Amino acid sequence: HKSDMDLDNLSVVLHSQKDLRLEQRPIPEPGPNDVLLQMHSVGICGSDVHYWQNGRIGDFVLKKPMVLGHEASGTVLKVGSAVKHLQMGDRVAIEPGVPREMDEFFKNGRYNLSPTIFFCATPPDDGNLSRYYTHNANFCYKLPDNLTFEEGALIEPLSVGIHACRRAGVTLGSIVLICGAGPIGLVSLLVAKAMGASKVAITDLSLERLSMAKELGADFTVTVAKEDSPQSLAQTVGDLLGAPPTMTIECTGVESSVQTAIYATQSGGVVVLVGLGKEMVTVPLVNAAAREVDIRGVFRYCNTWPMAIAMLASGKVNVKPLVTHRFPLEQALQAFETTKQGIGIKVMLKCDKNDQHA
Amino acid sequence: HKSDMDLDNLSVVLHSQKDLRLEQRPIPEPGPNDVLLQMHSVGICGSDVHYWQNGRIGDFVLKKPMVLGHEASGTVLKVGSAVKHLQMGDRVAIEPGVPREMDEFFKNGRYNLSPTIFFCATPPDDGNLSRYYTHNANFCYKLPDNLTFEEGALIEPLSVGIHACRRAGVTLGSIVLICGAGPIGLVSLLVAKAMGASKVAITDLSLERLSMAKELGADFTVTVAKEDSPQSLAQTVGDLLGAPPTMTIECTGVESSVQTAIYATQSGGVVVLVGLGKEMVTVPLVNAAAREVDIRGVFRYCNTWPMAIAMLASGKVNVKPLVTHRFPLEQALQAFETTKQGIGIKVMLKCDKNDQHA
Amino acid sequence: HKSDMDLDNLSVVLHSQKDLRLEQRPIPEPGPNDVLLQMHSVGICGSDVHYWQNGRIGDFVLKKPMVLGHEASGTVLKVGSAVKHLQMGDRVAIEPGVPREMDEFFKNGRYNLSPTIFFCATPPDDGNLSRYYTHNANFCYKLPDNLTFEEGALIEPLSVGIHACRRAGVTLGSIVLICGAGPIGLVSLLVAKAMGASKVAITDLSLERLSMAKELGADFTVTVAKEDSPQSLAQTVGDLLGAPPTMTIECTGVESSVQTAIYATQSGGVVVLVGLGKEMVTVPLVNAAAREVDIRGVFRYCNTWPMAIAMLASGKVNVKPLVTHRFPLEQALQAFETTKQGIGIKVMLKCDKNDQHA
Amino acid sequence: HKSDMDLDNLSVVLHSQKDLRLEQRPIPEPGPNDVLLQMHSVGICGSDVHYWQNGRIGDFVLKKPMVLGHEASGTVLKVGSAVKHLQMGDRVAIEPGVPREMDEFFKNGRYNLSPTIFFCATPPDDGNLSRYYTHNANFCYKLPDNLTFEEGALIEPLSVGIHACRRAGVTLGSIVLICGAGPIGLVSLLVAKAMGASKVAITDLSLERLSMAKELGADFTVTVAKEDSPQSLAQTVGDLLGAPPTMTIECTGVESSVQTAIYATQSGGVVVLVGLGKEMVTVPLVNAAAREVDIRGVFRYCNTWPMAIAMLASGKVNVKPLVTHRFPLEQALQAFETTKQGIGIKVMLKCDKNDQHA
Ligand SMILES: NC(=O)c1ccc[n+]([C@@H]2O[C@H](COP(=O)([O-])OP(=O)(O)OC[C@H]3O[C@@H](n4cnc5c(N)ncnc54)[C@H](O)[C@@H]3O)[C@@H](O)[C@H]2O)c1
Ligand SMILES: NC(=O)c1ccc[n+]([C@@H]2O[C@H](COP(=O)([O-])OP(=O)(O)OC[C@H]3O[C@@H](n4cnc5c(N)ncnc54)[C@H](O)[C@@H]3O)[C@@H](O)[C@H]2O)c1
Ligand SMILES: NC(=O)c1ccc[n+]([C@@H]2O[C@H](COP(=O)([O-])OP(=O)(O)OC[C@H]3O[C@@H](n4cnc5c(N)ncnc54)[C@H](O)[C@@H]3O)[C@@H](O)[C@H]2O)c1
Ligand SMILES: NC(=O)c1ccc[n+]([C@@H]2O[C@H](COP(=O)([O-])OP(=O)(O)OC[C@H]3O[C@@H](n4cnc5c(N)ncnc54)[C@H](O)[C@@H]3O)[C@@H](O)[C@H]2O)c1
Ligand SMILES: [Zn+2]
Ligand SMILES: [Zn+2]
Ligand SMILES: [Zn+2]
Ligand SMILES: [Zn+2]
Repeated sequence: HKSDMDLDNLSVVLHSQKDLRLEQRPIPEPGPNDVLLQMHSVGICGSDVHYWQNGRIGDFVLKKPMVLGHEASGTVLKVGSAVKHLQMGDRVAIEPGVPREMDEFFKNGRYNLSPTIFFCATPPDDGNLSRYYTHNANFCYKLPDNLTFEEGALIEPLSVGIHACRRAGVTLGSIVLICGAGPIGLVSLLVAKAMGASKVAITDLSLERLSMAKELGADFTVTVAKEDSPQSLAQTVGDLLGAPPTMTIECTGVESSVQTAIYATQSGGVVVLVGLGKEMVTVPLVNAAAREVDIRGVFRYCNTWPMAIAMLASGKVNVKPLVTHRFPLEQALQAFETTKQGIGIKVMLKCDKNDQHA
Repeated sequence: HKSDMDLDNLSVVLHSQKDLRLEQRPIPEPGPNDVLLQMHSVGICGSDVHYWQNGRIGDFVLKKPMVLGHEASGTVLKVGSAVKHLQMGDRVAIEPGVPREMDEFFKNGRYNLSPTIFFCATPPDDGNLSRYYTHNANFCYKLPDNLTFEEGALIEPLSVGIHACRRAGVTLGSIVLICGAGPIGLVSLLVAKAMGASKVAITDLSLERLSMAKELGADFTVTVAKEDSPQSLAQTVGDLLGAPPTMTIECTGVESSVQTAIYATQSGGVVVLVGLGKEMVTVPLVNAAAREVDIRGVFRYCNTWPMAIAMLASGKVNVKPLVTHRFPLEQALQAFETTKQGIGIKVMLKCDKNDQHA
Repeated sequence: HKSDMDLDNLSVVLHSQKDLRLEQRPIPEPGPNDVLLQMHSVGICGSDVHYWQNGRIGDFVLKKPMVLGHEASGTVLKVGSAVKHLQMGDRVAIEPGVPREMDEFFKNGRYNLSPTIFFCATPPDDGNLSRYYTHNANFCYKLPDNLTFEEGALIEPLSVGIHACRRAGVTLGSIVLICGAGPIGLVSLLVAKAMGASKVAITDLSLERLSMAKELGADFTVTVAKEDSPQSLAQTVGDLLGAPPTMTIECTGVESSVQTAIYATQSGGVVVLVGLGKEMVTVPLVNAAAREVDIRGVFRYCNTWPMAIAMLASGKVNVKPLVTHRFPLEQALQAFETTKQGIGIKVMLKCDKNDQHA
Repeated sequence: HKSDMDLDNLSVVLHSQKDLRLEQRPIPEPGPNDVLLQMHSVGICGSDVHYWQNGRIGDFVLKKPMVLGHEASGTVLKVGSAVKHLQMGDRVAIEPGVPREMDEFFKNGRYNLSPTIFFCATPPDDGNLSRYYTHNANFCYKLPDNLTFEEGALIEPLSVGIHACRRAGVTLGSIVLICGAGPIGLVSLLVAKAMGASKVAITDLSLERLSMAKELGADFTVTVAKEDSPQSLAQTVGDLLGAPPTMTIECTGVESSVQTAIYATQSGGVVVLVGLGKEMVTVPLVNAAAREVDIRGVFRYCNTWPMAIAMLASGKVNVKPLVTHRFPLEQALQAFETTKQGIGIKVMLKCDKNDQHA
């Protein structure tokens, strides 16, 4: 079906820190376990911008040009010889992390922790901000007809929220604090509500983001000023909620916010660290330990796509309002600039020249 | 505050099988850890009717007259000397099971399994279908202003649904089968949805009950005919849901329905037995075992009232439509007759002469 | 390294019910993810004998000749092109189940439930009772120097015990009942002790097997007579242990023993079904449900080899006494006859002509 | 039975920082739910010494004289009117924490987190370093004949180890790192082994303590020098164990050791914080979060006495070697001096004039 494709494989390639280029890449051939995809919608993530601006995140350092993008959906164009569950024309959402080895993490169902995992747009692995892209078919999930491509692409950030709420143990009647109302805080809010949380409070510095949170269902919003002390913020949150939160999902990575999370959480509760900040942080660990407040990290996600698709298809969660901007792939640099400036929530790049719809 | 009370403590007393009477009982005095309550709304449960018709349930045999009723709410009239968290005038929902001993079950947080537990309207313990009633204050929960007394009373059956869904592990994206659309099946449906189930199918013999289930949010209903084979029903359910249910909550107690539950459930899933039927049942246990479908029982509930109140107060669950009939306490026998005939869903008795509202 | 091998690949092949033959098979070539193994020790399992005697187990029906054997260890002779973690000369234990598809069961760490899994000596998949055999390298685990090949082979039945005790939740101070002192009951006993059980009682019809159990560490043994009632056996067990067992591991598959397991287990406890008996069984399910005694099946195992190796290497568990008979591969039919007659516990076949040691 | 008692109730009373006195106290009368105990053996804990030296631990400040001691066992002399499970002459181990209110923590089985809990020798609650002492009977556990009083007293520190290993999830084949070989590190070592750990490494500054650890079953010991970097220690530990520990139990409270714990632990593993150090600590939280290494605190324990008794009675754990010194109650000040100087492991005070045996 090469005939269905043109030869244009425009891609968003990061050459080095601050050197982002739109350029042509060869159209890849799928291996036996892969599918070739015509990309449709790809969201821009904070990490894409971070690589662009800094050339690295922690120990992951850009050493050669890399295609960006990992929040993506597209259409199957070609099917590898060993692939059974997909066929040409299937619309799919892409899980960007694909374990390379069948190690103990993978066998135990925690493949996100596999040290050799492939992950789109994490050096040296290419992402999918291209017109055409191949991916392991086992990590492509068929979208039901009632889901849009953009919903498919949003499953990636949504998965972070699912994994966070799952690790937090959110359940019926949970009282939840979310620190930070960026894209990750907001998807965590949506998921917490869908899992039965009775009350959710959310914090941010930005009034605009908090008003978006309110629209998406937050029961309480807390505007944080940089000089607020963590203890007093914790107190404010408990007062608003009528009780200390049973779990806090930290989505800023900021030291003082981690402190707030610990002070605020009820004894026996959980703080989930989603936000990733500086290497060493100073925190009231005895306060947490002596009240058995568990501190659990989140590294991406595993086993979330089927659950996310079920949830979106049933209408229990509506992620559509998260998309505030759209750009054709050709205008990727403007799109990145928009995200960099913190305007809106989620910026979508539309990779299919013939279909720029949601 | 005896002055607030008249001396009328009309009570619904079961003297022996089929001998149900309305009669006066002395107004009790609360002990140091108790509260005296003016009862407001008490729902009639299948078990109340069962004691009335059979004089026993399993090993619990009526040996002396017993007040019926255990789905209840009321207002605090008097507070025992050691009670701190309640005061006169507080509107409360009553948890009918109160552990008598601090045994290992209680210390481990599973007090519902304590063999010496007090339980309203389980021989020989009196229930609360009276005008006035005393109860351990630790098992009375203050109702927020936005909850009605009837919602307070409905927390009891709702708690069975909460405990069932919790034991089933219902979570985001779960696919749930519920067998039986009686009051217990219906509250399980409400709870499953609130905990994030993406699809719920429910079975019953009665079209009327299934149409109520549909109104309450069931995605699929399956009308069962007595001659249907469990395997074929299991197949039907899987076809409707698009996949086998990840968990099944059995709320009929009928042998063939337990079989359906096992056949229908996905490998690695859970069957929760809420319905309690005959002592020995014949079931495809190897089918369950060899697919690691766990079979978990439910005995009442524990630690559900706070969670239920949070859920009702936040509007995440609406139990009000379950109440289909109301009778003043004086007409308790007609009310029992109504439940016995399987008319409607939940019949409420209104115990306060001066306030017969919801 | 073909030079290291002769062309003799004597194999134990089941042609049809009761038609077991020793015959030559071609020496297979390893695929890219496989290793070619020179087999050393292979235990005979009840299921091998069952296929031989009945030509089927449940829905698994022998339709064409199949090599038997799945409790095995050997030495790597050749390494597939994509294999990294093994090399020629490595001594390995073989996990006989290899998932074929990356389905949701596999991704979630429960690959034993994958419906398309390859499993040695389960029709139509060949086992490893041969001189030479290829297997997926990801399911071959390097043996430390201080473990014998027979210990390596015994990891397979031991894994059933590990999975059973893990599903039972055996932990420090657990009181455990094991029904049946065959190989599976005995490994469950060893594992329960190693996981911290304070007391283990074990039942069997056979005094000889119970005396083996005693030697292996059982605190109490219960000789069952066929006419004993399950309730009275349950009572006896509770009396011996000083309390009802917190969990029971059923390793007979016999209906009355499943009944005993349910009656005996403490409220809030667990019955694990390892034994697989007839399709429909009659059991006191209400007794279990109303005491929240969970019933959990065991289907083989997953993620047990690394843990088993750690345990054997550290000397925490000693499986060596389980081997009561050894035969050279050439005498496989006598070996099978021995197991069929229920003599001893575990019969080992020695597949390496040049090394018939443990 | 007052006749059995003399009027001597010598007690170890802390009047204020550094002011520890032996003085007479009235012999108390048991309330309806209490028992009066003749104390036999009481261990000295680091916290007793800490109150003596500092007059406070964190927010718990000594404001009036307080009897010290909380690791205790004795004999029932008198039984409160409501007590059923104990009688005169019973030898019991004392759980020092007794919840005062039936709050949500208690109902959920985590009564150690109840903010109003009574706890021996935590201001303002008196401990049991006396000749006679009353305690809630529900928190006194009968000792089997084959346990000594000292074993009974040692259940208290052992319980910290049990709770720590339980929160860590130690199970069959676990690889465990323990930081600190004081009494708490050593009991954690014993428990980890009993729960199935295959390898345990333990660190300390003191060679003497490490040699005790070796005797008690540690597989590896690591002598720490104050200047060692946490990363290099983590590396050393992983090298010794052959793999990073699946869980680390931190029993020093020292900042650099918490850092070592995080760096050392395997991705997906657990760090349990038992040691309680300074309020704010600087730690590599991103390292933990991004590898999903959970950080879980331990606050004392709950639901450990029955399990500990089962374990000691079955001989699975031997705590006797922990007692290195014994003093008659009259020499309590010398005993405290010994503990303060860090000599030996556990110092026992013998409170019964007529029986100073173990
Ligand atoms: N663990 C993972 O797998 C994972 C995955 C994705 C993102 N992340 C991390 O999650 C975090 C959030 O991601 P995002 O895309 O939403 O980022 P974002 O930068 O868009 O959002 C962060 C929000 O936090 C707010 N904030 C900053 N300081 C605050 C404070 N003191 N109190 C309250 N709010 C404060 C900001 O105003 C901003 O709205 C980032 O640290 C990111 O690196 C982690
Ligand atoms: N385990 C517990 O703690 C607990 C608590 C409360 C109730 N229960 C039990 O739960 C069950 C349900 O209680 P309820 O009040 O809803 O009873 P109910 O009798 O009102 O409802 C049972 C429903 O099951 C339907 N039914 C009967 N046979 C069926 C079949 N073969 N397939 C499908 N549906 C069928 C009936 O038509 C009825 O609508 C009862 O067995 C009751 O004893 C248990
Ligand atoms: N679930 C799984 O994955 C799995 C794996 C392996 C084996 N199994 C099953 O486990 C069971 C045990 O396997 P095995 O190899 O030890 O079998 P086995 O036949 O050697 O042992 C069974 C033992 O149970 C004893 N027994 C029979 N009736 C009894 C009774 N009423 N009470 C007490 N003991 C009784 C027998 O005397 C025998 O010693 C079999 O049913 C087998 O099919 C299951
Ligand atoms: N969380 C709880 O409920 C609870 C209960 C009891 C004790 N504790 C705490 O547990 C800790 C241990 O108690 P203990 O009685 O064993 O105390 P301890 O002081 O006797 O033992 C601590 C040990 O840690 C060693 N140590 C100090 N710095 C070290 C380092 N950098 N690396 C390795 N080892 C180091 C010391 O040499 C000492 O042997 C204390 O902090 C205590 O407060 C907590
Ligand atoms: Zn992202
Ligand atoms: Zn009821
Ligand atoms: Zn086998
Ligand atoms: Zn202590």
